Amino acid sequence: MRIAQVSPLYERVPPVLYGGTERVVSYLTEELVRLGHEVTLFASGDSVTHARLEAACPRALRLDANCQDSLAPHLLMLGEVYQRAREFDVIHCHTTYFGLPLTSFTTTPTVLTHHGRLDMHELGLIFCAYPQIAHISISDAQRQFQPGINWAATVYHGLPLDLYPFQSSQAPAPFLLFLGRISPEKRPDSAIRIACQAGLPLRIAAKVDPADQAYFETTIRPLLNHPLIEFIGEVNEEQKRALLGDALALLFPIDWPEPFGLVMIEALACGTPVIARRRGSVPEIVQEGVTGFVCETEEEMVAAVPKVTMLEREACRRAFVERFSVQLMAHDYKQLGKSNAVF
Amino acid sequence: MRIAQVSPLYERVPPVLYGGTERVVSYLTEELVRLGHEVTLFASGDSVTHARLEAACPRALRLDANCQDSLAPHLLMLGEVYQRAREFDVIHCHTTYFGLPLTSFTTTPTVLTHHGRLDMHELGLIFCAYPQIAHISISDAQRQFQPGINWAATVYHGLPLDLYPFQSSQAPAPFLLFLGRISPEKRPDSAIRIACQAGLPLRIAAKVDPADQAYFETTIRPLLNHPLIEFIGEVNEEQKRALLGDALALLFPIDWPEPFGLVMIEALACGTPVIARRRGSVPEIVQEGVTGFVCETEEEMVAAVPKVTMLEREACRRAFVERFSVQLMAHDYKQLGKSNAVF
Repeated sequence: MRIAQVSPLYERVPPVLYGGTERVVSYLTEELVRLGHEVTLFASGDSVTHARLEAACPRALRLDANCQDSLAPHLLMLGEVYQRAREFDVIHCHTTYFGLPLTSFTTTPTVLTHHGRLDMHELGLIFCAYPQIAHISISDAQRQFQPGINWAATVYHGLPLDLYPFQSSQAPAPFLLFLGRISPEKRPDSAIRIACQAGLPLRIAAKVDPADQAYFETTIRPLLNHPLIEFIGEVNEEQKRALLGDALALLFPIDWPEPFGLVMIEALACGTPVIARRRGSVPEIVQEGVTGFVCETEEEMVAAVPKVTMLEREACRRAFVERFSVQLMAHDYKQLGKSNAVF
Repeated sequence: MRIAQVSPLYERVPPVLYGGTERVVSYLTEELVRLGHEVTLFASGDSVTHARLEAACPRALRLDANCQDSLAPHLLMLGEVYQRAREFDVIHCHTTYFGLPLTSFTTTPTVLTHHGRLDMHELGLIFCAYPQIAHISISDAQRQFQPGINWAATVYHGLPLDLYPFQSSQAPAPFLLFLGRISPEKRPDSAIRIACQAGLPLRIAAKVDPADQAYFETTIRPLLNHPLIEFIGEVNEEQKRALLGDALALLFPIDWPEPFGLVMIEALACGTPVIARRRGSVPEIVQEGVTGFVCETEEEMVAAVPKVTMLEREACRRAFVERFSVQLMAHDYKQLGKSNAVF
């Protein structure tokens, strides 16, 4: 099958550091190539792939100091994708609504996987204007703000099985982990309070976007002086693997409608359970009392910390293998093809 | 001729308050209707026009408190425009590069008038990808950042002749005027210093965008306590007319590559000369020693203040009538049609 994978351009595929969407695009693309599909990946030129790479810009935009306008390269890329639509049996976009107006001018079907939150009412208007598009949610919870659009399936993110090796026991000196991005909705402040009250060290491995710099300085930095708290900053894949494998548990005290939360399944892949707040996708990812605890308040999360030692790390790994492998993700997209004739 | 005029959606057409682009779209649209063309105006639903209005959103986005995403309505509108391209002989877009990818799918020619600054390098890449588009600059100076694209013409903005009535003499108590938007590149701080040094009152009639609120509070508000300075805020058309007509001179001490500067020709229409800094379009609009003074430093601008009393207000009006009428603007677009077969 001739598949166009159309990635955002903010990060390379896969990202060097942080970046959930482009990471998932990479895993899916490589798996589709492995399965024998003819995949063309539209992405930043520094991407690394076994698919045919069409470089939409020389470098990923987030870490490119020369980038002044990030929308224009996306529209330029999508323009090319749809000019070449006849070369593909399906166009799989990960670029929110940007390409939708172009879908009217081709009979090649478009599948649009949503990676972000969908609670802006303008989105519903543009989604509904293109009813022929197959929309994919990455959790059932993600659909809540746009119940009326043509949802074709929920396809959970998947990771290669060997990406995060299982670690049967935690590090000798147990610690909790906050991994990802410093921003108000990710609630690093909550993670810090939970760790302090639980009396366990917390390692914070997180990037700070320019937009969140003020929040970091005013709200988070003053909390970092506690002896239990260690701020590491943005980490690469190797550091991430070590941190995830060694942690007693991942703290995920988010307070926003998280569409998926890739870091939760990265933790599970290592055998590390997750203590999370019940928001967005969380109850779909974490199996209460098996792979972690789904809480509402900080008090509940503090109380969950001693309980994670009773969870089996093998059960976490098993849940990951059964529910969140890249093979399953690719399979789900192929199933979609059977019902909707798109993949 | 069947013409689609495609406006930005930030303001209604014409705007209630501030808003240069939508104002010019309105003047051009009404003149084209008057000339007998069949004009379809794609704009916000609260727009007022003699053309056929296609409402791309219920209300203009800038003053709509419900607006969460201003790009989606633009892409939705452009999608509809190009799906209906065969209904038009020409599509005239004022929506920067947003619609360019859609132009590949129609033989109806697109004219794109640029209203903003063009010094972001990503713009050149997307402009050059669509060489069939006729690009219109609103001053020759505007082209400097994108010399390599297909510039079809410079068409200066034009106003209806009766919009701002000529006022033969200034008000009994002379004052200087700063009119427009509070932002660092418009240099209201400079206007305040010039007025104080010249010893004349300055009226500041300007909107403050949320993005510029901090600048206003930290940099401008502390300067407003001077007895010569009066801050009026955002004004409507009637207030603007009175201010422009009564002013001794318009101060336009901008420090950015102004693409056009509509307020300069609004002042000239009233017979009010302009004291401006030599940036962007300024030397093309202001005729030195005839309709105002083109300066570099604040000292030069202070020195120009007593000299404006020697300029003839009739000469300002005459320059406006000869160079910046809506008739001339419409004529220039029609000339374009003769050479490029687009209008």
